[in-house]
Amino acid sequence: MRALLFDVFGTCVDWRTSMMRAMERFGLPPALAEAWRAEYQPQLETVRSGKRPWVNLDVLHRIGLDIVLAEHGLTRSEADKRELVKGWHRLDPWPDVVEGLTKLKETHIIAPCSNGHIAQSVNLAKYAKLPWDAILGAEIARAYKPDPRVYLESVYALGLEPYDACMVAAHRQDLAAAADVGLSTAFVERFGEDPGPPFDADVVAFDFVELANR
Amino acid sequence: MRALLFDVFGTCVDWRTSMMRAMERFGLPPALAEAWRAEYQPQLETVRSGKRPWVNLDVLHRIGLDIVLAEHGLTRSEADKRELVKGWHRLDPWPDVVEGLTKLKETHIIAPCSNGHIAQSVNLAKYAKLPWDAILGAEIARAYKPDPRVYLESVYALGLEPYDACMVAAHRQDLAAAADVGLSTAFVERFGEDPGPPFDADVVAFDFVELANR
Repeated sequence: MRALLFDVFGTCVDWRTSMMRAMERFGLPPALAEAWRAEYQPQLETVRSGKRPWVNLDVLHRIGLDIVLAEHGLTRSEADKRELVKGWHRLDPWPDVVEGLTKLKETHIIAPCSNGHIAQSVNLAKYAKLPWDAILGAEIARAYKPDPRVYLESVYALGLEPYDACMVAAHRQDLAAAADVGLSTAFVERFGEDPGPPFDADVVAFDFVELANR
Repeated sequence: MRALLFDVFGTCVDWRTSMMRAMERFGLPPALAEAWRAEYQPQLETVRSGKRPWVNLDVLHRIGLDIVLAEHGLTRSEADKRELVKGWHRLDPWPDVVEGLTKLKETHIIAPCSNGHIAQSVNLAKYAKLPWDAILGAEIARAYKPDPRVYLESVYALGLEPYDACMVAAHRQDLAAAADVGLSTAFVERFGEDPGPPFDADVVAFDFVELANR
């Protein structure tokens, strides 16, 4: 195993608490964070289905925000909406993440394989101190997980084959899609994240520190 | 200034000493390192001119190696030639580089904007402990510097504009090409590197530590 690829939203960072705080800062109900996130998969699906060309996650987050604000009869200034979208660039890591990644980095290439784009992933890594070796994922492939190209292009960019890499995620659909194209898989359950349908991951760990110790 | 983009070969790492040692390990004359490097620009030019589609630097290094070995009537096994090409993934940094980059990373996004591909850049960063925030450069743009797309695609991948970024290099042609498309420039002279024709860089520093202190 040469490389570990990580899902980010929910797996590395606690988007829920961070975005609830962001809502409060803009005088919006914290529960709007959950409603906004519920627009995530439907908006990704517009790209996956070919209905919309590949646009980055800031664009899809903005479209989702406009929908949920309208649904709740709320309006915000253009500047506020831009800042809210940028909230997804500043999410707190789960408490084990920086220690676990730092340890895993000693022996493996570690990189996000996220639906976030490069700019979002870099800004998030700076904010949350995620010590990535490279930024991979959706933008490299111009596709969105679970499209197999996202996993494969990320692995190939490292000059590796799928069996050299392990996908780490808190969502079993993500792992199943990675396994379908030959990657190994590690499941880490995270509070508040729907683990998804049954899937037999190669490794199951409580957190990234336990993962590093195995 | 939000991001600093770095040339790598010669600017961050001392390719010459490292590759001379690699030659010795394979029973080849150390001076072959210089001859091999002399094939670098001609091989890049085959891609820049459109004569050859974009292939990564391992491929171009291998083509150059075959040429210089043949010129000197030398042969090596396939396995040895593969290892020699991988020598360009394991180059020692100049002594100021890790300290300087670590300091610059506190206040800026730092990334290579090199003609190396992602796998080479990641392997080199692991070996030389270069603490990049992201891996940008030739592979993102599928072009080779000084093609303006390499600088622009690297900047855009960070969600920035050219005037938000500064190119750092020991070669003034590289800086001139970056400045042509709107980036700021910083020149660092490196022993044994041809600084190139006159160019008035925005900043001139002895090394990366001095660069970080300004």
